[in-house]
Amino acid sequence: MRAVDIIQRKRDGAELSKDEIAFFVNGYTQGAIPDYQASALAMAVYWRGMTDAETVALTESMMRTGEVLDLSELPGPKVDKHSTGGVGDKTSLILGPLAAACGVYVPMISGRGLGHTGGTLDKLESIPGFRVNLSLAEFRAVLAKAKIGLIGQTPQIAPADRKLYALRDVSGTVESRPLIAASIMSKKMAEGIDALVLDVKTGDGAFMKSFPDAKALGEAMIAIGKGMGKKIAALVTDMEQPLGRTVGNALEVVECIETLKGRGPKDLESLSLELGAWMLHLGGITTSLDAARIKVRDALQSGAGLRKFEEVIELQGGDPRVCGDVSLLPKAAEEIPLRSPSDGRVSRIACRAVGHAGMLLGAGRDTLESRIDPAVGLVLHKKVGDLVIEGEPLLTLHVNDKARLAEAEALLREAISIAPEVKPRGPLIQAVLG
Amino acid sequence: MRAVDIIQRKRDGAELSKDEIAFFVNGYTQGAIPDYQASALAMAVYWRGMTDAETVALTESMMRTGEVLDLSELPGPKVDKHSTGGVGDKTSLILGPLAAACGVYVPMISGRGLGHTGGTLDKLESIPGFRVNLSLAEFRAVLAKAKIGLIGQTPQIAPADRKLYALRDVSGTVESRPLIAASIMSKKMAEGIDALVLDVKTGDGAFMKSFPDAKALGEAMIAIGKGMGKKIAALVTDMEQPLGRTVGNALEVVECIETLKGRGPKDLESLSLELGAWMLHLGGITTSLDAARIKVRDALQSGAGLRKFEEVIELQGGDPRVCGDVSLLPKAAEEIPLRSPSDGRVSRIACRAVGHAGMLLGAGRDTLESRIDPAVGLVLHKKVGDLVIEGEPLLTLHVNDKARLAEAEALLREAISIAPEVKPRGPLIQAVLG
Repeated sequence: MRAVDIIQRKRDGAELSKDEIAFFVNGYTQGAIPDYQASALAMAVYWRGMTDAETVALTESMMRTGEVLDLSELPGPKVDKHSTGGVGDKTSLILGPLAAACGVYVPMISGRGLGHTGGTLDKLESIPGFRVNLSLAEFRAVLAKAKIGLIGQTPQIAPADRKLYALRDVSGTVESRPLIAASIMSKKMAEGIDALVLDVKTGDGAFMKSFPDAKALGEAMIAIGKGMGKKIAALVTDMEQPLGRTVGNALEVVECIETLKGRGPKDLESLSLELGAWMLHLGGITTSLDAARIKVRDALQSGAGLRKFEEVIELQGGDPRVCGDVSLLPKAAEEIPLRSPSDGRVSRIACRAVGHAGMLLGAGRDTLESRIDPAVGLVLHKKVGDLVIEGEPLLTLHVNDKARLAEAEALLREAISIAPEVKPRGPLIQAVLG
Repeated sequence: MRAVDIIQRKRDGAELSKDEIAFFVNGYTQGAIPDYQASALAMAVYWRGMTDAETVALTESMMRTGEVLDLSELPGPKVDKHSTGGVGDKTSLILGPLAAACGVYVPMISGRGLGHTGGTLDKLESIPGFRVNLSLAEFRAVLAKAKIGLIGQTPQIAPADRKLYALRDVSGTVESRPLIAASIMSKKMAEGIDALVLDVKTGDGAFMKSFPDAKALGEAMIAIGKGMGKKIAALVTDMEQPLGRTVGNALEVVECIETLKGRGPKDLESLSLELGAWMLHLGGITTSLDAARIKVRDALQSGAGLRKFEEVIELQGGDPRVCGDVSLLPKAAEEIPLRSPSDGRVSRIACRAVGHAGMLLGAGRDTLESRIDPAVGLVLHKKVGDLVIEGEPLLTLHVNDKARLAEAEALLREAISIAPEVKPRGPLIQAVLG
């Protein structure tokens, strides 16, 4: 088998065999196939796409370049949730503890934020002492005890993906549906889970802006999950405006704690509950989705979810007292309001721009090497549809370093539109696939 | 400007600007842009194609990475011919001397054979002493004196092309029309010529098998030539069977000498004369193509072409006596006939297979590093349409090393078909573009 023949076959629109895909993925990961052949193949895949069978084979090959967790010793369903990323998207910290409190094992391996999107790891690290870099052995121990563990991708998990992702980033092959789907799924499928719930974001703040693209990505990931014998479902959800009211790491943790106390914003609460219910349902904890919804809501109302969050914080070296006293979390030096220029209703909050403004304040990363400031970010006082009067604060910026403040403010002023009338918003959950 | 943005623009079907193309070509040639970005761009170009403006910009950028000859001190038109390569395609050694004898300067920078196709340099090197590796200064001196010089590509000519060609070869991006056209033209346009005649081969033995593909390649090269202000024309010519009767380096030189003496095979003679006439015509030596045809034929009949060939052989260090005594050329140890299995007419001589058989005998190269044997090859006694009786030699193999003889014979037996009836052949010259 030769790499160049495989490239040519894909270039000419043929379906690659399982063996060809495994040969290429293994050769590339081990260094026998050079970057310039992998980038040419990636571009050919970008062009020609992949069948479901090819995408499953790619995912399995990438997964098998690294360690695949075997959690079969844990006596219960192992279920994770994955989001394609958004702004203010913090449901993991709510639904993870809720699902674990309801009896699901939640082995959650998350990423960091990049560009305008946040990352679960960065949010967790704003909790004093919280360690996301557990060894796999420590991760197992935490999981066995709390039914939930929250860590970052280790070098042992799907090394092919790390290498290929870095290459795609510089070779113009990021936005390829089968490559995106295989990248996500190769890591998720290595977690040793039985089921997976996908939150595929769509809209201005999402990776997949249009609904059809988001739906197609969801379907591609579902095909992979099913092809690998897992239970899987996907919710396509709105990312036209930030989820909840906070953007920024410690600010988002505060909002999660509030939500686990039943005092969170409705959009964040309802999406977290629905995704959590799907985790229970796919995990077989309840006999129906409706029963799962009731069970997850009970865990919220009883405080079981909050106690579970405290438990996992403590097990992973963090200070669990933050759940009772959020002033223990990092706090920015200054709070600066952004006021409405007119009376009316908020007609638009350009989601990507808000995420970008948060990044400029230090809440996110320009490049993977950037350092973030856990305290900074912004709190939205108004969301789309809300009434506002001239001079009223639309949001509050939480600021430490003012170097790029003016830039962030300018971006936000541009991002938020006020109008006399607002057309009704579409639903938060736009489709359920699976 | 960033390489990845250029890749993405081409990937998305945009037309690249002259500046973007120059940035990429220069960056790649100098090593600032890595192979993996160049191969991704090459695949995107393979997919999306290039407009004429882009292809001209690519060709100019590639040409300008190296030396561009300025032959303006030579007092006459500078014209070359380029062939896309075939089997038994030896017209350069005939039309070059003829055109020079008629007053055209012919600065011919040629390549070596690869795979089933032969190369002008290899043929010339079968002449004892002939040096194809003249310095550019020596080349100018030979040209000034004889009006013709025949050398190989120097490292100073279009280094971008050498680097890019090697990359395309291993990244599945060889068969891209704009990349092929730019590769050829970047070298030819560096020759300091005023006009160029293209011989675009089509058929089984050609790089472009189908007539539409060959025509499209010819048109792409014409667009480049015109875009760069040159006179240019292309003949699309038949390569369904070998040209002339010989395949193999010294054997082909003998056939060229015979043709320059008026004793060559009709197909080789007529194509050489026609291409030569186009060189005169585009060079403005005559006022019409018909006048050019008469002038070139005169140069053949008078022996002026042969004398010109002797002159350039001598000037480039070769032994000019080969023109009078072909036994001074290398000769294979053994001649082995391949006989007809039946009575009938030759209905097919699979051209690529004949070239491949020649390569197996040592006349051509498997890889660029292979050594060739100038003496070996084959001589066809029958061409398509010829009557043959059972047991009559169809061809003679000229053999030194018998290691792969059986393989070559098997290939040839398969390559030649005998049938009771043969449908009439299409014309040798299938189209004239320009």
